[in-house]
Amino acid sequence: MPAKSHSDRNFNIKRYREGLLSGDRVILGRALTLAESDRSQDRARAEKLVEEILPQTGKSIRIGITGAPGVGKSTFIEVFGKYITSVGTKIAVLTIDPSSQKSKGSILGDKTRMDELSKDPLAFIRPTAARGALGGVATTTRESILLCEAAGYEVIIVETVGVGQSEVAARGMVDFFLLLMLAGAGDELQGIKKGIMEMADGIVITKSEGDNVSKANQAQAHIRHALHLFQTPESGWLPHVLTTSALAKTGIQETWQMIELFRVHAAHNGFFEAQRTQQQMAWFHAALEALIKDKILNQSKRVLASIEKQILANRLSPNKAAREVVNKIKL
Amino acid sequence: MPAKSHSDRNFNIKRYREGLLSGDRVILGRALTLAESDRSQDRARAEKLVEEILPQTGKSIRIGITGAPGVGKSTFIEVFGKYITSVGTKIAVLTIDPSSQKSKGSILGDKTRMDELSKDPLAFIRPTAARGALGGVATTTRESILLCEAAGYEVIIVETVGVGQSEVAARGMVDFFLLLMLAGAGDELQGIKKGIMEMADGIVITKSEGDNVSKANQAQAHIRHALHLFQTPESGWLPHVLTTSALAKTGIQETWQMIELFRVHAAHNGFFEAQRTQQQMAWFHAALEALIKDKILNQSKRVLASIEKQILANRLSPNKAAREVVNKIKL
Repeated sequence: MPAKSHSDRNFNIKRYREGLLSGDRVILGRALTLAESDRSQDRARAEKLVEEILPQTGKSIRIGITGAPGVGKSTFIEVFGKYITSVGTKIAVLTIDPSSQKSKGSILGDKTRMDELSKDPLAFIRPTAARGALGGVATTTRESILLCEAAGYEVIIVETVGVGQSEVAARGMVDFFLLLMLAGAGDELQGIKKGIMEMADGIVITKSEGDNVSKANQAQAHIRHALHLFQTPESGWLPHVLTTSALAKTGIQETWQMIELFRVHAAHNGFFEAQRTQQQMAWFHAALEALIKDKILNQSKRVLASIEKQILANRLSPNKAAREVVNKIKL
Repeated sequence: MPAKSHSDRNFNIKRYREGLLSGDRVILGRALTLAESDRSQDRARAEKLVEEILPQTGKSIRIGITGAPGVGKSTFIEVFGKYITSVGTKIAVLTIDPSSQKSKGSILGDKTRMDELSKDPLAFIRPTAARGALGGVATTTRESILLCEAAGYEVIIVETVGVGQSEVAARGMVDFFLLLMLAGAGDELQGIKKGIMEMADGIVITKSEGDNVSKANQAQAHIRHALHLFQTPESGWLPHVLTTSALAKTGIQETWQMIELFRVHAAHNGFFEAQRTQQQMAWFHAALEALIKDKILNQSKRVLASIEKQILANRLSPNKAAREVVNKIKL
């Protein structure tokens, strides 16, 4: 009964949409699961759903948070999130974990690490499991951001767990990129992947409490100095460096004020919109490349097989073969 | 006069082919220049030429040589090359330098560093300038290898200058990958990019002479130990670690014997052919991707422009837009 099945699907999309727009957490959870699914019919429905809610998206501030293991990311996000909800603002926390595909549940098991925040009715915490297929975790997270926005979340945190490619992916989908660092007698620049600091709009030194305060202040000066070595970023915004303590709850409000200040600054000089536009285009082109690659590799096996045979028989050079295939492509 | 121009071109390809097959160094030099050219008519002619000489290619042993700056790469290659020519074998040295595009002539000016070898009638030394466009230096070098093979060179060295992506590119086009390392009290593993050692089929410790001999021997033991930490490579060949001195001319013949041994080993278990097949396919797919990307980005600007507008107006999600474009592609 294809007709019924079709109307069923439409009903579901409608129900998803209505649930999201009314801020229904259960529906949001299900929508995110749909977006994470690898099955092609789920993919199609997720895309349809994202399409439907597009006009209701884009109104949040999207914040990327990263930092080396041990820096106290979860603790910081918990206290920061509680501050956000204390002023009546809804916050969603999405986690990018490139390893979650292999060791399913590694974050889920760890969910209690944001114990307080996860019980907060104004907060929504969700680890993003990596989809194996096209675009992987990046596409999933981008769609998840939009779904959370449709559900009324005004602050979206994209937390990256790994140190590596996931930071670059996260940087490409957020408005503000926050790097957490730990003070340690002069070596706070250690353990930070080259290039990560250059991507940051703000740097927060964690665990600035008790005996650590003076070390944190030294680190602050040290990092501020290091930042001067970089070019002025495109945003025209010079990254702020703050010291914080999740324990003593210091620097938390200041972190939020920094982000608010950035938003005003970037809205005023047009960077905020320009960056979002650029990110949308980058997403489009990345998706396009991934899909084309998929199409060529998987849907044109017969065409390619005969060409590959000719290459291996030394009758066709790989370069010329590629040109011949591409010349056949009609757009 | 398009007809004449056309026959001119055919004549040239024929002349190139004949020149190459007779081992004419001047013609080889010109053919390599053609392969390096960015102009589309040169591209087409280079591809045609490569096509013509394909049956005469593949008979050399292709050796990648890399190592951090200061390790003595040029000196080693000079002495190694002189050994090869001393037994009557023709050797070509191609250099991949990712920086040469920016600072044209940086290697050319440095050509005298292989002074002896460059005067040897059995040797041919050529820095590969990076083509800016599709595939860049990798495609150029792959075509250069084929052209040198057609000209009768039996050993092709692909030397990488940079430390980074060029090693990965080189690894993808050679049969044997040789890593040069310098002995230094225990820290010989420093300065080597993660992953480079895993790619090596052989490791040569340079400058094992005078006071350095015991350090080199220690390094040899140290590296052999480190290699045990890696998985057995697909080739089933455990990388050899040798100590050499270009000055004292020790370990040079042994390096060549190691490569000969590898060739026998890999021919026997089928890895040699399997690797070449895999490299041909990888080249084809890389070329295909690059050309498709180019086609979509440059030749379909009008189609994309209207879609991009819809994305920016939030009427189409980037993912769905990409799918729509791809669905229109006919192969």
